[in-house]
Amino acid sequence: MIPPDHPRYRSLVTRERLAGCAKKGIVAMEGLTAHGRGEAFDYLIGERTTISGLLAEQTAAAMLISARHPVISVNGNTAALAAHEIAALQEACGALVEVNLFHRTEKRVAQIEDLLRNAGADVYSGEAERLLPLSHDRAWCRRGGMFSADVVLVPLEDGDRCEALVSLGKTVIAIDLNPLSRTARHATLTIVDELTRALPAISRACRELSAADRDRLLSTVDNHYLLSEAIHEMTARLSHALD
Amino acid sequence: MIPPDHPRYRSLVTRERLAGCAKKGIVAMEGLTAHGRGEAFDYLIGERTTISGLLAEQTAAAMLISARHPVISVNGNTAALAAHEIAALQEACGALVEVNLFHRTEKRVAQIEDLLRNAGADVYSGEAERLLPLSHDRAWCRRGGMFSADVVLVPLEDGDRCEALVSLGKTVIAIDLNPLSRTARHATLTIVDELTRALPAISRACRELSAADRDRLLSTVDNHYLLSEAIHEMTARLSHALD
Repeated sequence: MIPPDHPRYRSLVTRERLAGCAKKGIVAMEGLTAHGRGEAFDYLIGERTTISGLLAEQTAAAMLISARHPVISVNGNTAALAAHEIAALQEACGALVEVNLFHRTEKRVAQIEDLLRNAGADVYSGEAERLLPLSHDRAWCRRGGMFSADVVLVPLEDGDRCEALVSLGKTVIAIDLNPLSRTARHATLTIVDELTRALPAISRACRELSAADRDRLLSTVDNHYLLSEAIHEMTARLSHALD
Repeated sequence: MIPPDHPRYRSLVTRERLAGCAKKGIVAMEGLTAHGRGEAFDYLIGERTTISGLLAEQTAAAMLISARHPVISVNGNTAALAAHEIAALQEACGALVEVNLFHRTEKRVAQIEDLLRNAGADVYSGEAERLLPLSHDRAWCRRGGMFSADVVLVPLEDGDRCEALVSLGKTVIAIDLNPLSRTARHATLTIVDELTRALPAISRACRELSAADRDRLLSTVDNHYLLSEAIHEMTARLSHALD
């Protein structure tokens, strides 16, 4: 038991939740470490949605709403942290929800699909094939799912998968707290925000944006600007710690 | 299997090693997340020992060599990542090596003590008592070990334990990649460097520092300066990414 008077109580409780999901096999052990990396960068943006983060979330909503065939790609960490938020976003934007894993086993895929369905998501789980130009298990996806998508939302993705999707001509929306990562730099649009803050913000924008808002957002996508703003937040916070 | 052509191969292999130790019970699941936080900050100092980091390591050596009763406190992550480096430092500075865990069970303590002994460390494992002013399992330590120490090296420590040790009047040397953490700010001396780089650097300095070097280092300890330098490294690296 983590004592409630511990100054990092909330973060430690989230870690415990992920650890519990790791014991069940839903979260890969390596996913726990990846979560820690995110925590560090979240700390550096003040553990809140920044102005530029919100702009990115609204732009993501415009992309998803305007897409012909949008897909939300879900991995173990995303399902463990935000299954309900994924279901809500699916309802708001009409995207397919598809499970794609780095540490892939059929059992893990099935467990994560169950978790998502129990949270209310309609999961697309057709037969997977090795369709992406990648050397490991992430090559797998479904012909009618991510492979056919024009817009893919990849929360907590790794860099090579992101690059492979961009190389296939897709619009890739990443949610990644590290603005220096390959994912962040290669995605069409990067949301530098924490997952459980980012997903509800995208859902809200899907419901609220007017057609004119959407057109304006889609005509001014500038990922370099968004990453620069995130980096400025981090350097400002680090520098402030020196005072 | 992680493919060797993966751009983050080294980091992923280290994660796999920690994941393996987590499966054996040596590393707490929560320790995997804590490792990830460290990875993020290590990335921001360029994954190398900085000038100020080396100064901190030399100062740590001077403190350990000059101590009456130095103790190295080891947790699961430290043992998993650097058991041999701990044994080598013990040989270089003559400190007691004592296992102290946040997620404490007798079984984990025994596993970690075995791991350290197999790496050549002489582990002090007398009976533990709740001696530190803390509300959870970290209150446990040994009367003849950490409780009697004048200088304690705490690699990868949490903030409240660090504060408790300082409040007992001890000289606390932390190894912590996050220069903003409570541990980093409250320790007498903070080494902002990665564990397996920091420990050998301290051991080398233990062997090589002259008495005059030691006196000079001990008379100029300035933790605020060391943390400021680490923060400057990080902001410079972040800003450079904007170019």
